[in-house]
Amino acid sequence: MASLPAGAEIERLIQLLAKLPGLGPRSARRAALVLLKKREQLLDPLALAMREAAAAIKVCETCGNLDTTSPCSLCRDPRRETHVLCVVEDVADLWALERAGVFRGRYHVLGGALSALDGVTPERLNMASLIDRVSRGVDEVILAMNATVEGQTTAHYLMDTLAASGVKVTRLAHGVPVGGELDYLDEGTLSAAFKARREL
Amino acid sequence: MASLPAGAEIERLIQLLAKLPGLGPRSARRAALVLLKKREQLLDPLALAMREAAAAIKVCETCGNLDTTSPCSLCRDPRRETHVLCVVEDVADLWALERAGVFRGRYHVLGGALSALDGVTPERLNMASLIDRVSRGVDEVILAMNATVEGQTTAHYLMDTLAASGVKVTRLAHGVPVGGELDYLDEGTLSAAFKARREL
Repeated sequence: MASLPAGAEIERLIQLLAKLPGLGPRSARRAALVLLKKREQLLDPLALAMREAAAAIKVCETCGNLDTTSPCSLCRDPRRETHVLCVVEDVADLWALERAGVFRGRYHVLGGALSALDGVTPERLNMASLIDRVSRGVDEVILAMNATVEGQTTAHYLMDTLAASGVKVTRLAHGVPVGGELDYLDEGTLSAAFKARREL
Repeated sequence: MASLPAGAEIERLIQLLAKLPGLGPRSARRAALVLLKKREQLLDPLALAMREAAAAIKVCETCGNLDTTSPCSLCRDPRRETHVLCVVEDVADLWALERAGVFRGRYHVLGGALSALDGVTPERLNMASLIDRVSRGVDEVILAMNATVEGQTTAHYLMDTLAASGVKVTRLAHGVPVGGELDYLDEGTLSAAFKARREL
């Protein structure tokens, strides 16, 4: 990318904005311009919100969620079941499940998925604390990993690890996404949906 | 959007990030998570870069460009022609033309386009300073407005306004974008490209 006819401070701002997921070089330039033009309405409040969120954020000592308290609001909520654990790779996955509102138990955030390529070993994920929680009395562990190679490797590893404890281990169903068109689906999804077909 | 199982500080950060162009609610959530997870590598440097850019930024008193000096680096550059002015709506357009490297004269940033709907009148754009610059000796004014209704209205208005000064006024050519496929182009572009066809 050619250098912009603007100062080093603006270049640096654009470079850092481009590191955010969802922003490429072009949208980072647009974002920088909007920030600089709307200083009072956007730039100053955003800088403040970043500082405040960074200062307030804690990693939940129980489940690994990000919240402003530890244990997090989900782990402290007395209305949530304590005997069902849903294991996710990332906080974003926890948020997605909470938005769907389908689960009323507790979570466990691994902080990633096993990956030989990226050097992510079981020790680098929150697995020891999961085993510990399971040993203290859990009826069911729902493995809600991503349907990627890494996610499924992690799920298999956990299934093996948890087998000794005798806990019931389940995983999310694979199939046709609601609203999905068969024509646009990959073979793997179609094959999974076929194998798991149900009688009406 | 359902409330996230996270603190108000994180909600606020996500809300502000979602105001950046290119980031919707979903990507703002992802961006907030990445910021909070990479505090030292990303959040702190970005907050600093925002403060520094906001403190350093100036609006060029001559052309309306954003730079860390006023007059801006383009207006101060002795290698650039002073007798040709390229009028753009926005700083982003100036950056786009500089990236293309096709123009070696001076710019004039209007700060928007005329819009009856949004209440943008000629008085709210940097038009008086343009007329003033033209009156002090310019050979050609290139109108590089967007090919939108507002952009073209602005170009027509400027053409009328500048007619009295006797300066040569040109506009960018319309036509098939380089690399563009006819099948995907709108009728307006095809019609413009046909009318402006050139002998080989």
